[in-house]
Amino acid sequence: MSTDDTTTDTTDASTDTTDASTESKCGASSADTAEASAEASTDTESKCGASTTDEESSSSKCGASSSSSSSSSGCGAKADDEEEEEVGATVDDFDADPGRLIAVGLGPGQPEGMTTRAKSTLAEAEHIVGYTTYVDLLPDEITESADDIYDTPMCGEVSRTEEAIDRALAGNDVAIIGSGDPNVYALAGLALEILESKGGTASMVDFEVVPGVPAAQSCAARVGAPLVNDTVSISLSDHLTDMPTIESRLHAAAKEGFTITIYNPWSRKRRDNFQKCCEILAEHRDPETPVGVVHGAGREDEQAEIVELQELADLGETDLIDMTTTIIVGNEDTYVWDDRMVTPRGYETKYDY
Amino acid sequence: MSTDDTTTDTTDASTDTTDASTESKCGASSADTAEASAEASTDTESKCGASTTDEESSSSKCGASSSSSSSSSGCGAKADDEEEEEVGATVDDFDADPGRLIAVGLGPGQPEGMTTRAKSTLAEAEHIVGYTTYVDLLPDEITESADDIYDTPMCGEVSRTEEAIDRALAGNDVAIIGSGDPNVYALAGLALEILESKGGTASMVDFEVVPGVPAAQSCAARVGAPLVNDTVSISLSDHLTDMPTIESRLHAAAKEGFTITIYNPWSRKRRDNFQKCCEILAEHRDPETPVGVVHGAGREDEQAEIVELQELADLGETDLIDMTTTIIVGNEDTYVWDDRMVTPRGYETKYDY
Repeated sequence: MSTDDTTTDTTDASTDTTDASTESKCGASSADTAEASAEASTDTESKCGASTTDEESSSSKCGASSSSSSSSSGCGAKADDEEEEEVGATVDDFDADPGRLIAVGLGPGQPEGMTTRAKSTLAEAEHIVGYTTYVDLLPDEITESADDIYDTPMCGEVSRTEEAIDRALAGNDVAIIGSGDPNVYALAGLALEILESKGGTASMVDFEVVPGVPAAQSCAARVGAPLVNDTVSISLSDHLTDMPTIESRLHAAAKEGFTITIYNPWSRKRRDNFQKCCEILAEHRDPETPVGVVHGAGREDEQAEIVELQELADLGETDLIDMTTTIIVGNEDTYVWDDRMVTPRGYETKYDY
Repeated sequence: MSTDDTTTDTTDASTDTTDASTESKCGASSADTAEASAEASTDTESKCGASTTDEESSSSKCGASSSSSSSSSGCGAKADDEEEEEVGATVDDFDADPGRLIAVGLGPGQPEGMTTRAKSTLAEAEHIVGYTTYVDLLPDEITESADDIYDTPMCGEVSRTEEAIDRALAGNDVAIIGSGDPNVYALAGLALEILESKGGTASMVDFEVVPGVPAAQSCAARVGAPLVNDTVSISLSDHLTDMPTIESRLHAAAKEGFTITIYNPWSRKRRDNFQKCCEILAEHRDPETPVGVVHGAGREDEQAEIVELQELADLGETDLIDMTTTIIVGNEDTYVWDDRMVTPRGYETKYDY
C-alpha cells in the first residue's frame, strides 16, 4: 500500500485511537509548533524520542503501540536504566553512535511475497517500525526476534518515519517497513527528507533500501500479462500532488499508448478524482479497453476482476474499489483471453507462432 | 533483464553456439517455414517437442543445453521408454494431460532478491526453462531438485518460451524464468500469446505469474529514493516498438514531470536510440537533472553512478551503459543529497519537519 492511503485517514484515526495513545505515548511530542524543542517523555515503558509532526492531528499521540518483545527493551535508549535520550528534532540531541536505518519493502502482503533479503534484513533489525497492518503480516519469527516493534494504526507516516529515524540516531538498527516497494509512493524518500531536516546524513545511518514487489506487478500477475510494454504509474491522491497535474499526466499517458497503473483510486475524500480519471481515460481509449481491478492483492480479502473501461466509473461505489485497490488500464492492443489480460509486446509482428 | 536484450543478440548467439547445439538438440525443429509439422527428434537424451520459431536464425538449434539432473528425465515425455511425444505446433499433438506453466520473476539477480513464493514455485517445478545467465543464478537446491533444466545462451526467447509451453502441454510442471518481473518487458505475455497460437488455453496449464522485483525498483533502491512519485518505464529497443512511438512517449513523459526508468538503453545496434533519447530529455529537463545509472543490478559486476542529465549522452560509449544497464531520470524536483537521489513525494508542502 502506498503512503497516501494512510495519510488520507490520519484524521479519522487520530480520533479513534485515544485509548491506545494512553497505553504508550512512546515519548511522543507534538512538533507542529515553531518550537520543536525536546519534550522528554517520562513514560518508562518506552522512550523513543518520537515526535509527531503531523499538522493535521496536533492532538494525536498516534495510537502507537510499542509491543516490545524484549522486557529490557526501551527505544531510543537501549535500556531503561540508561540516561533518557532527549527527544526532538536534530541529530545533535542524540549522544549515541547512530545505528542503521533500512527501508524494507514487503511486497504484496503475505510473507511468501517477501524477498529473502527483506526477511533477513528484518531478522537482523533491532527495531521494526511500520503501520500496524503491515506489522501484522510479518512472520512470527521476525517479530519475535526484534527487540522492539513500533506500529501505528492508520496514523501519519511522517511521525512514524521520524520515529524510525530517531531510533536509528539513538543507536538502534532500525527497519522501517511498508508493503510493495519503498520507492513506489512510499517512505524511502520521506526518510531521507526527514533525516536531512534533522541535520543527519544518509551515510550516518548506513541508509539502505531493500526493494520489494510493487503493487503494480503483484496486481498485474493476478490478472495475467497486462503490463509487458511501456507503462505508467499514477496516483489519484491529490493530497501531495495537485489535481491539474494528475489530470495532465493521465491525458498524456492515455494518449501515448502506455498501460496505466492507478494507485490510490478512491477514498471517502477522493470520489471526484476517480470519476474525473474515468472521464479522461474514456477520451483517449476505447470503451471496451480491458481494465484489471485488484482489491487487496496478496491479502485474505483479495479480489480481482477484469472489466471494460466503460464499466469502471460505476465500480467506484462498490466494495471492489477502495484504498487497497490497484487498477491496471490496458493500452490499445490489450485484449482479454481466457480470463487473462494480455498486452502484446509486439513479438507477433516479427515472429510466426 | 528484459526480453529485448536477448532478442537483440539472437543472431550473434546463433553462430556462437554451433558446438552446443550438437550436444543437445532437444527435439528442436525449425518452424519458420509454413509447415510447422512435427519433426521428431531422435535424440534420446532430450525429447522436448521444442520447435524454433525464431525467423532470424533459421539454422539455430538454440545452443540449448538440457542439463538434466535426473537420469530418468526426458522432457515432453516423462521417461525415455514412453512413446515419443510428437513435437510441433498445436495442442492436439500432445496426448498427455497437460501439466502446469508458471512464469516466475527472479528479481534483481542474486538468490536473496527472490521472493519466497518464487523459490518454492521453482522447488516444486519439474522443469525449469530460462536464459542460461538466469539459470546460473539459481541456488543449487533449486536446480538440483528439478527433473530437467532447459537453458539457452543468448538465444531467442520465442523458441525458449515455446519449449516451456510444449513441455507443459506434454504433462510436465514447468517454470519459465526471467530476471525482474514477468510483466516488465518479459515473457508472461509472450507465453500467453504462444499458448493461444497452439490452440491451448491458459486454464489448461493453470497458467500463473509469480511476480518479482523489477529492475526499476532494484536500481532505484541502489541510488536512494528516485521513484517515489508518478513514474514511467520506457524501453529504447525499437525491435518490437517503432522509434517514432518511443520518441513520442519520451517527449510526453519528460514534459509531464514523470520520473523515467529507461530499459534497454543501449546495444551495438541501438546507439542512435540512446543519443536521441538524451536529446529529447534535454529538451524538457534541466541539464543538471540527476540521473541514476545502474549497471548489472544485483550482479557481481554491479556498478551504480549518479550523474547529471548533460553527462548522460557521453556515457553511452563507456562500459557503464550496456544491455544490463537501467537508467533512472529524475523529475524537476529530484535532487542529490549525500550520494542519494531523492524525488520528493510532496510531504514538505504539507508537513513541517
